[in-house]
Amino acid sequence: VPSIAIVGASGYGGTELLRLLTRHPHLELATVAAASSAGATVRASAPNIPDALGGATVLDVVDVDRLAQADVVVLGTPDEVSLELAPALLAAGTRVVDLSGAFRLDAATFSHWYGRPHTAPELAADGAAAAVYGLTEYARATVAAAPLVANPGCYPTATLLALRGLAGLLEPTGIVVNAMSGTSGAGRSTRDTLQASVVHGDVVTYGAPSHRHTAEIEAHAAPVGLTEPIVFTPHLVPMARGILATISAALRPGLGQADVDAALHGAYDHEPFVHVLPSGEFPRTKAVHGANSCQLSAVVDPRTGRVLVTSVIDNLVKGAAGQALQNVNVMLDLEETAGLDVVGVYP
Amino acid sequence: VPSIAIVGASGYGGTELLRLLTRHPHLELATVAAASSAGATVRASAPNIPDALGGATVLDVVDVDRLAQADVVVLGTPDEVSLELAPALLAAGTRVVDLSGAFRLDAATFSHWYGRPHTAPELAADGAAAAVYGLTEYARATVAAAPLVANPGCYPTATLLALRGLAGLLEPTGIVVNAMSGTSGAGRSTRDTLQASVVHGDVVTYGAPSHRHTAEIEAHAAPVGLTEPIVFTPHLVPMARGILATISAALRPGLGQADVDAALHGAYDHEPFVHVLPSGEFPRTKAVHGANSCQLSAVVDPRTGRVLVTSVIDNLVKGAAGQALQNVNVMLDLEETAGLDVVGVYP
Amino acid sequence: VPSIAIVGASGYGGTELLRLLTRHPHLELATVAAASSAGATVRASAPNIPDALGGATVLDVVDVDRLAQADVVVLGTPDEVSLELAPALLAAGTRVVDLSGAFRLDAATFSHWYGRPHTAPELAADGAAAAVYGLTEYARATVAAAPLVANPGCYPTATLLALRGLAGLLEPTGIVVNAMSGTSGAGRSTRDTLQASVVHGDVVTYGAPSHRHTAEIEAHAAPVGLTEPIVFTPHLVPMARGILATISAALRPGLGQADVDAALHGAYDHEPFVHVLPSGEFPRTKAVHGANSCQLSAVVDPRTGRVLVTSVIDNLVKGAAGQALQNVNVMLDLEETAGLDVVGVYP
Amino acid sequence: VPSIAIVGASGYGGTELLRLLTRHPHLELATVAAASSAGATVRASAPNIPDALGGATVLDVVDVDRLAQADVVVLGTPDEVSLELAPALLAAGTRVVDLSGAFRLDAATFSHWYGRPHTAPELAADGAAAAVYGLTEYARATVAAAPLVANPGCYPTATLLALRGLAGLLEPTGIVVNAMSGTSGAGRSTRDTLQASVVHGDVVTYGAPSHRHTAEIEAHAAPVGLTEPIVFTPHLVPMARGILATISAALRPGLGQADVDAALHGAYDHEPFVHVLPSGEFPRTKAVHGANSCQLSAVVDPRTGRVLVTSVIDNLVKGAAGQALQNVNVMLDLEETAGLDVVGVYP
Repeated sequence: VPSIAIVGASGYGGTELLRLLTRHPHLELATVAAASSAGATVRASAPNIPDALGGATVLDVVDVDRLAQADVVVLGTPDEVSLELAPALLAAGTRVVDLSGAFRLDAATFSHWYGRPHTAPELAADGAAAAVYGLTEYARATVAAAPLVANPGCYPTATLLALRGLAGLLEPTGIVVNAMSGTSGAGRSTRDTLQASVVHGDVVTYGAPSHRHTAEIEAHAAPVGLTEPIVFTPHLVPMARGILATISAALRPGLGQADVDAALHGAYDHEPFVHVLPSGEFPRTKAVHGANSCQLSAVVDPRTGRVLVTSVIDNLVKGAAGQALQNVNVMLDLEETAGLDVVGVYP
Repeated sequence: VPSIAIVGASGYGGTELLRLLTRHPHLELATVAAASSAGATVRASAPNIPDALGGATVLDVVDVDRLAQADVVVLGTPDEVSLELAPALLAAGTRVVDLSGAFRLDAATFSHWYGRPHTAPELAADGAAAAVYGLTEYARATVAAAPLVANPGCYPTATLLALRGLAGLLEPTGIVVNAMSGTSGAGRSTRDTLQASVVHGDVVTYGAPSHRHTAEIEAHAAPVGLTEPIVFTPHLVPMARGILATISAALRPGLGQADVDAALHGAYDHEPFVHVLPSGEFPRTKAVHGANSCQLSAVVDPRTGRVLVTSVIDNLVKGAAGQALQNVNVMLDLEETAGLDVVGVYP
Repeated sequence: VPSIAIVGASGYGGTELLRLLTRHPHLELATVAAASSAGATVRASAPNIPDALGGATVLDVVDVDRLAQADVVVLGTPDEVSLELAPALLAAGTRVVDLSGAFRLDAATFSHWYGRPHTAPELAADGAAAAVYGLTEYARATVAAAPLVANPGCYPTATLLALRGLAGLLEPTGIVVNAMSGTSGAGRSTRDTLQASVVHGDVVTYGAPSHRHTAEIEAHAAPVGLTEPIVFTPHLVPMARGILATISAALRPGLGQADVDAALHGAYDHEPFVHVLPSGEFPRTKAVHGANSCQLSAVVDPRTGRVLVTSVIDNLVKGAAGQALQNVNVMLDLEETAGLDVVGVYP
Repeated sequence: VPSIAIVGASGYGGTELLRLLTRHPHLELATVAAASSAGATVRASAPNIPDALGGATVLDVVDVDRLAQADVVVLGTPDEVSLELAPALLAAGTRVVDLSGAFRLDAATFSHWYGRPHTAPELAADGAAAAVYGLTEYARATVAAAPLVANPGCYPTATLLALRGLAGLLEPTGIVVNAMSGTSGAGRSTRDTLQASVVHGDVVTYGAPSHRHTAEIEAHAAPVGLTEPIVFTPHLVPMARGILATISAALRPGLGQADVDAALHGAYDHEPFVHVLPSGEFPRTKAVHGANSCQLSAVVDPRTGRVLVTSVIDNLVKGAAGQALQNVNVMLDLEETAGLDVVGVYP
């Protein structure tokens, strides 16, 4: 039985991966590590996981040698930690899926948007041993063979599944993306602005126009010809989970609703985790709550010549731990859907 | 492969059962019926279930003969519909699990609390062919053989798992139960008081002191000697799912925290779906979101000689569709946990 | 003392106006009418208004002659009702502020976007006795003299205060507006999609690309040269009140942050109800909860040459009843701020 | 014009008092101080208060001499800070209203429930210069003359208005109080358990059975003969503001609904801030959102001989800053209702 280790297991990405692994039929959980919570029970950070799931109940220290005994290590750590751990783990001979932003961009772009040098440039997107960007639906072959997978960010996943599904149909200029996220996207943070008293009954824009996911969206939309700057504006909405991305783009001349629908169905009807809704029916975030699923739909406005695509994911599942597990399944040649639901908890 | 049919499949109990069945390994979904939504897709009421789950996508008319071809029929229908359908289905030779309140009480008590006569008294709790009250942990043997199972209500499930786990330790007088429920407990209702604008940011008491679940709690606490009236007060809180029940009761003389803990662990440590937390640690509803799990804990207050038990369930899972499936598994001699998670979606 | 009457007093616009009037020093409440709730207490629809506020406690039938005895009548009625009542009330000699969409557009545009003929075209925006569009900050002189004021919609108010504050600075092409609203914007509706169980923890797009407020935004942005189609996409977010509008537009050549800030401060520093925040600080809807206040800020992105404006209002106050009262104050030559708070209830 | 100073002005009690003072006609705001936020703008903690409300925009250091120049100082500080500041301010010749728990109990009870000695015992409830417990409706004469007012806690306010309104009607044994609070009751805290991701969609019990408000409720129910221990269980519910208290108590022999109603109406019909609803109609927290109002109702259950009282307040208004201002008005011989709304923001 192949084995998996988790670092950062007390963060929301980490606990979500533990949840998914409780029902994975073919993976052994080797080590569950967390720098800040070593020695604590998993239940202290994940009250949904009863003690009875014994093997998962104590958080270990971060020990590279021990971690490297697993077939794959998933890093749910901040960028700066991943920049240190990933090279060490690769050197110790294991494979790595990283949930942070450390390896999703080329070194120069990373440096520009993150405001500091990339300290492992050989693993950056333009490095000699570049990480594979793990938007699974578009990277299966390379993920299968990759030593290091850079798991996509939550906003880029929701946005890129829409944009890449319409490859060739969109004008590259004037693309405007607005996205709304629940609070868990900010991690297990105790920032004042993430307090329940502040968030409840409130909507607020943040991070614009220089949110780092802008660079990630642009970098990974470029391969399908969308090489112009994209306007990306994120908002915080009062819920724990879920992302909705609304994409407005001009259609190329002569195209219409039928072309859009054909493209999306062609791209996704065979995909287990991406579901195209009929045009005019809008996906809701709660429909994918807890599921490794993206629902999307598109409507063309003849009046403006633009298409509106809306795309929803659970930021902790298809936007983080679920897609990581999807990539792990591909890397280990397991069934890609193992341990992963496509049905959300609704309502 | 045994087969199951659902009536009332567009209600919240029905769609939740459909969700659970999508991952059940050993049950075939025979018929999905709904009086009011016949001809509609399942996705119209359950946007979490993609069309790709084809067999489940069209709602059928309610046809007793066709339903009776299934090994078990689950009724997610109002009391008055269940009172008609259950006898008909039993006569047609199938077995039934009923989610309504129709068969949980003796005929006279039903008549008193529901304000109308019981029209199928032979199936009431004191009838010749009485339904089995399906609080599974306390009724496995009878459920296994039952033609008709009355699935417990959501508040009674949360309350009775606490009270029956402390059988013999509590004074029967002065038991006060307060419970808080999310809105889905009221069903897919369009009542003004269940509008989002009204519910958001609001807590309100309702139904006291004559909520029907009072009678159900008393009826099924009586077998363990709790034969005095119980004060039960429900509240609506601003969330979609989840119930928390807070039970205050006087301990019998000479008993203390150790006795309480021993009783609860003795009752539930071997149970897959009931989890006892350490005293002083309080369960939260979100820990069981989407799971067929009850978490509970108890703390004794030496100052007052009373014990406080808090118990949480997801009202749509252990409080409805999940416990129904647990009963179906027992009835069909399948593994009791098949298709049922114990890990909630948190946070 | 001037007097005011309200029709549709059991709707959210109506009850909000009643709330504001309880602290207005100079207006007598003449009649409180509601077609569907005649005879009921105000408290049945407005539990925040205790019975002790006696004059407001009984809802009257809709009686034009009686209503017309008031100096101003505010209509919180659906379009089709306003189309009948407004002409009748004007003929009976009173003045009218209408909260519906009936008189905000010219007759042809109304007919196109509302899908039926305008039945009082003389009062439409291009009629002989055209209603005044009551975006108060831009229409004081005409509002003061108007027999009929068309109170702006909630989305248009939030959007137009941003767009008109930047008059002359924006390229008219490629303006994209995304907006998020709490559920009270949909009125006291019992539609399935506005149920608490559905809305809680959920974000969803709706109405795009043909939401009627698109036409209203375009019609009232045109006077400042924004004559191209505007992309408008509304979303429902899980809260009761509040609207956030996010506007992305290209700046004219040579302009930058300083020009934007100067324009907004020039437009609004003297206004009691519009507050410009420093660039980079984003307004949050809860800061204006219950207040007749708009908070907005703008940030220029040199990378794209576009400006991002975010604007928040309480949809029931500055987006409905508050702006109506602001207009009433102007019409009756009262202090414009009478009865209107600028401080929201936060957090 | 009398003047007021605020310490702890960046906490939720402090910012709420600032909000209320913006519409108080007869009080000058002398000093706005905050230890941790000195030098910051008020808007940094209170985005609802625009900069234009200039006098209030900068937070001062905590300077006893300067503070003492005001006629009254309101302390929105933690217990341990109030224990130091209150004696110093009184010595400097001003009067004080304290929002903390420092002076609500006798010294021994304080010491027992707070786990440390009372360091200003002369000001404790049994001291030579005892603070007056400022449940205004029951303490007007003593508040008017008091140098130091201990403003009641939020849970005790909601509970005691119910219990004292039924003085003489209740059996003292077996009183069970359950209460649900929004998160702002915990203050501007960044504790992990108050994070939006944790709180959203969740209900949880906390602090039982030894929450400090238990002692406060007992101490101030005792004067009306309720001298037995009271069971008090608080819960955190997913909203920002509001408290609902549910009180179950046995009626004395021979009493019924008419006696209960007569007592409540007799106690409160002349009170501006307490509203008795008809029996069977339950108050909802949102009806008093932002208002210095308590709504309550009682229903007698003949089956059990018990009465159920439910009582709602806004924890930051009648449960904190509003009641403080009510007390300040009484102390300064101003109109008691000045600056205080009785109408909440609903829905």
